Amino acid sequence: MATAALAATATATAKAAHAAPQADTGPTTGPKTGPRTGPRTGPKIGILLYDGYGLLDPTGPAEVLSRLPDATVTMIAERRGPVRTDTADVAVVADRSIDEVDRLDVLLVPGAGNRGTIAAMNNEALLRWIRRIHRHSRWTASVCTGSIILAAAGLLDGRRATTYWASAEYLQSTYDVTYLPERYVRSGKIITAAGVSAGVDMSLYLASLITDEDTARAIQLAVEYDPQPPFDSGNATQAGPQLKQRALELLAASQV
Amino acid sequence: MATAALAATATATAKAAHAAPQADTGPTTGPKTGPRTGPRTGPKIGILLYDGYGLLDPTGPAEVLSRLPDATVTMIAERRGPVRTDTADVAVVADRSIDEVDRLDVLLVPGAGNRGTIAAMNNEALLRWIRRIHRHSRWTASVCTGSIILAAAGLLDGRRATTYWASAEYLQSTYDVTYLPERYVRSGKIITAAGVSAGVDMSLYLASLITDEDTARAIQLAVEYDPQPPFDSGNATQAGPQLKQRALELLAASQV
Repeated sequence: MATAALAATATATAKAAHAAPQADTGPTTGPKTGPRTGPRTGPKIGILLYDGYGLLDPTGPAEVLSRLPDATVTMIAERRGPVRTDTADVAVVADRSIDEVDRLDVLLVPGAGNRGTIAAMNNEALLRWIRRIHRHSRWTASVCTGSIILAAAGLLDGRRATTYWASAEYLQSTYDVTYLPERYVRSGKIITAAGVSAGVDMSLYLASLITDEDTARAIQLAVEYDPQPPFDSGNATQAGPQLKQRALELLAASQV
Repeated sequence: MATAALAATATATAKAAHAAPQADTGPTTGPKTGPRTGPRTGPKIGILLYDGYGLLDPTGPAEVLSRLPDATVTMIAERRGPVRTDTADVAVVADRSIDEVDRLDVLLVPGAGNRGTIAAMNNEALLRWIRRIHRHSRWTASVCTGSIILAAAGLLDGRRATTYWASAEYLQSTYDVTYLPERYVRSGKIITAAGVSAGVDMSLYLASLITDEDTARAIQLAVEYDPQPPFDSGNATQAGPQLKQRALELLAASQV
């Protein structure tokens, strides 16, 4: 059986190699190695969804990490099914419940508005699951206030971490955590990212740790991440009080 | 009844104003104007999902545009229900079918891998709906190969536009479109963005057009968009052939 499987793999590889030069038939040019078939043997990445998360927190990292060779990205929640964002406008489907997932190579916990973050911090079933998965994970990561949920699970005791800029004081005053105003912070196998969009930067760094820098650089090009924001107002340490107030007003007003 | 409603609104406003100074009770500090209640009178933003889209293409813009004052962001597809990404790992829920949506202030069409892009280009029901919504939209936007779908719908004839770097030649050689290697390109009320992550930059620009620069700058801070990618490999015009080849291999291998 092992020989037959190997032979089948060799045939598939030969076919792929043969197909490659003539496969420029779609709107996006380039080598065609897909479609992907068979079981995936690469990193198993699980992203925890819970009511009220911010949409970009899980989806930015999912986009980046899904391009790792042979990776699986799974959205996980307390129960299977659609999980709504902080605005309640959008739902991503959790394809697995926490009861169905025992091991992950990478666990990622996104952030949320106050409603979602507080509920998750007080959800013992979620915190237990986070601790359990973290025990055997290769990497445990967070985006935005996801680090506060990691802290509530007891994973950040005595560590350095980052979080959403407007949550830094809370994180530092509530837990035994040293807040760093960085885009992402690695402490052992835990990597925390700053707010919302910082998950994309963090995931590229994480991709380089999981594979190598060449692969991570190629993923950055695959998602054309050459950021050119039209404004320069994304850094809270350089923002005045009025801009901060306005940002938090817009956030609060958009959330349910 | 109108008087009663107004009185109720006044009471709610007074309560909110009273509550503001003492509302710093959650992990994220700042003014508490939410939770949002009542009908939303701001811009109606619709994002078209179709089988095989790239996850960040719709979700990055949804995150940014959902912070516009009183905005509604709706995920729309040919039929209601979960719509899977190019890797088939993740599904976002379409809460409305195209038959249920007649008017939008903003229509956004995300991109996809070859399978999804080709299917959408050849889906006359989708193209008809895109043309119909575009007729009355304030803004029509695309991310990545979404511009090829706009072109297939006939919306880009004689226009300048951008698209995913590896799809530029296809766009330009197949349609009457002048490709520009920009992060986003505005042509009248149509704004096209480059690949995947470019939708975030484009959406901040679009936010400034819908409201004003101050609001867009505050949204950028709200999503902490202060990009600091660990590498500098996201721009295809500066990438060598090996890096491009590797990026396209990773993409193709991750897609189903």
